[in-house]
Amino acid sequence: MPPTAPVTMSATLAADESLARRRRAGLPVLPMASGEIGLPVHPVLKARLAAAAAHNAYGPVAGSPDLRAAVAGYWQRRGLVTDPGLVVAGPGSKPLLFALLLAVGGDVVVPVPSWVSYAAQARLAGARPVPVPVLPGQGGVPDPDRLREAVAAARAAGRDPRAVVVTLPDNPTGTIASPGTVRRLAEAARDLDLTVISDEIYCDLVFDAATPAVSPAVFAPERTVVTTGLTKNLAVGGWRIGVARLPDSDTGRALHARLTGIASQIWSSAAAPVQAAAAYAFGETPGIVEHVAASRRLHAAVAREVAARFVAAGAGLAPVRATCYLYPDFEPLREHLGRAHGVHTGAGLADLLLTRYGVGVLPAEAFGEEPRTLRLRAATSRLYGDTEEQRTAALNAADPLALPWIRASLDRVEEVLAGLTGTPAARPQSALHA
Amino acid sequence: MPPTAPVTMSATLAADESLARRRRAGLPVLPMASGEIGLPVHPVLKARLAAAAAHNAYGPVAGSPDLRAAVAGYWQRRGLVTDPGLVVAGPGSKPLLFALLLAVGGDVVVPVPSWVSYAAQARLAGARPVPVPVLPGQGGVPDPDRLREAVAAARAAGRDPRAVVVTLPDNPTGTIASPGTVRRLAEAARDLDLTVISDEIYCDLVFDAATPAVSPAVFAPERTVVTTGLTKNLAVGGWRIGVARLPDSDTGRALHARLTGIASQIWSSAAAPVQAAAAYAFGETPGIVEHVAASRRLHAAVAREVAARFVAAGAGLAPVRATCYLYPDFEPLREHLGRAHGVHTGAGLADLLLTRYGVGVLPAEAFGEEPRTLRLRAATSRLYGDTEEQRTAALNAADPLALPWIRASLDRVEEVLAGLTGTPAARPQSALHA
Repeated sequence: MPPTAPVTMSATLAADESLARRRRAGLPVLPMASGEIGLPVHPVLKARLAAAAAHNAYGPVAGSPDLRAAVAGYWQRRGLVTDPGLVVAGPGSKPLLFALLLAVGGDVVVPVPSWVSYAAQARLAGARPVPVPVLPGQGGVPDPDRLREAVAAARAAGRDPRAVVVTLPDNPTGTIASPGTVRRLAEAARDLDLTVISDEIYCDLVFDAATPAVSPAVFAPERTVVTTGLTKNLAVGGWRIGVARLPDSDTGRALHARLTGIASQIWSSAAAPVQAAAAYAFGETPGIVEHVAASRRLHAAVAREVAARFVAAGAGLAPVRATCYLYPDFEPLREHLGRAHGVHTGAGLADLLLTRYGVGVLPAEAFGEEPRTLRLRAATSRLYGDTEEQRTAALNAADPLALPWIRASLDRVEEVLAGLTGTPAARPQSALHA
Repeated sequence: MPPTAPVTMSATLAADESLARRRRAGLPVLPMASGEIGLPVHPVLKARLAAAAAHNAYGPVAGSPDLRAAVAGYWQRRGLVTDPGLVVAGPGSKPLLFALLLAVGGDVVVPVPSWVSYAAQARLAGARPVPVPVLPGQGGVPDPDRLREAVAAARAAGRDPRAVVVTLPDNPTGTIASPGTVRRLAEAARDLDLTVISDEIYCDLVFDAATPAVSPAVFAPERTVVTTGLTKNLAVGGWRIGVARLPDSDTGRALHARLTGIASQIWSSAAAPVQAAAAYAFGETPGIVEHVAASRRLHAAVAREVAARFVAAGAGLAPVRATCYLYPDFEPLREHLGRAHGVHTGAGLADLLLTRYGVGVLPAEAFGEEPRTLRLRAATSRLYGDTEEQRTAALNAADPLALPWIRASLDRVEEVLAGLTGTPAARPQSALHA
């Protein structure tokens, strides 16, 4: 029997549409709910897409040979030797993740917190998510010890977990699990015979090059599937292109056959003109590399400043090391929030921020946490400008924090948090441009 | 538990890739397995896609307002008043059909024969297909009387059929169920409380304008979902765009909410630049309308000539009235095929045609028929030329049958069938250009 429980629209996209309605109504908004990257497309990528407009054939289910070769090179430059024959492209990494869950079968371990769609996809695939908390400050990877316990308990209860999803770097926390934790996760997966599905779509958005995310494919190459796309590093989410790297092993080849079979039945192929442009992007010319570096610098600058304001307001927050997300914890302010605002849950806090202040954020509950958890995910990726000109200026600015519209957003964050906490706007310690 | 049975790659795409390998090896091929339309993209559509290359935002899950308004107009011009708020776009009608099966839930009645992916998608969605034969010469719509029996039997056996899929006009048979049959199907669906999912992707490829396909949405508007796309009428399959029209009823609105929820979790949205070009296409300017008309004339001319050759060779065949498909029945030649070629099944016949003659076709088994059924689906949509120049010439030709490469394909069909049947090449009755 297929699933028939109510299906919730992706919380990210739903909050996003709600903010768009407020904006159309002329109300002020601070759009930090969606992680969609508000930056322009690299001009050469636009030209490549335009030049491929005549590409109207489906081409191979797994993607064009050009695209797969470029993707293999991309991963090889990151230390993962990759057979183009084991690369599969699709219309976004989201459909690839869904098809992987179908292809592996069984239930799936998901970190808590984790991206809104993993658990929802598992349920659509007829599976049940097995939630396992992450270690403090190391989002995206289930605590390996608790993973072992949870899988043993699930199997003892007659369930059949076969995969674990990890996010490196992590959404929603903006942190990166340490190589040691990733290694222990990989070992646990091997001992438990789990496939590791490693969502590495933020791998190019690690702020400090000295501490990159290390893939579980390094430690458990025979069982780790890696996925990524161009949505985050090159801001072309609306183009819908994602790629997966299957393990070079018997298991991996069997999974590849199942994955491409499922892809052929659900979506056929990614849009051909987009594949052509994506092949260029994954080829990483110097211009593309610099474009990604500029966006990474921008995310780092703004995310750290926003984080400093949450910390100054009294929220708990692990240092943000990657992505454009922060995940502040308002537990230290629970008593005040309850007394002053009648807020006792993450959803209540997010709702207050949206309806009173026009600030879009997502509650921890959207990431699989308990309703009472007073955490929020805030994304900075929409604060870079409302127009193509502003966004281009932000991307190219030596000091983006000095741009008036970004400064205004930072001031607004400060003001809103002051209103929320009932204290005078606290200058964060790392304050800029005194 | 999610499905873990072997997943077969879409038979169409698999045969297609096999033919591509033969062609690369320098072997002669007559590519009639895939229904991919080998025709060029309209120049204005290319320009529209190129102009939208900067569109990198996801936009609404259901598609841009422009696209949905254009699609509503498209359906209104075909007699179906349509609320743009009940239109949902996706990356192909294939993923929309899959998501609809998930959204409706339960098991699904599929016609026999029918498109390769309906039953495969049902199984991926965790459902079981309930096969019901079509009436002779009226492909795509399950015999309404047998539908009633099959649903009653399935329910008596504890199963839960909730939907029926129809194809109007039909793939694989190239026929169109009569309005009377469609009406009886709609009445049966109402009596049985089934959702009708009507795949009308070939609706612009009906050869005779006097006898269009009539949608079940005319007879059961409260429960009929219609899907279509630009893959067949405008040959942009590789662009991946499809649309669905949900019923304007409480059921329809509930289904719309579920469908967009599922879409948000599986694919987010269709590629934004493609949506922009698609909005133009569904707007149906005179240039677009004439382009579709030219391709329809071409399909009609070639499909009828190929059909005449199968009939002349002794195969049974209902008149082809739409699409670019024919579905000849070699049952009258069973004895000869067994004796001369050791062929006793549709798959055996298709394999013989592929390996001995380089002719790609799909066996009836790929459409849900019994293995012994000696029917094949042949598509003419790849016979229009190997180059952009040839294809453009075919599209614009007053008499495409006089073009040397099309004539050569027709001659090759005749020659292959003569070899197969062991008779001198029989001139078909409707022979051209004596």
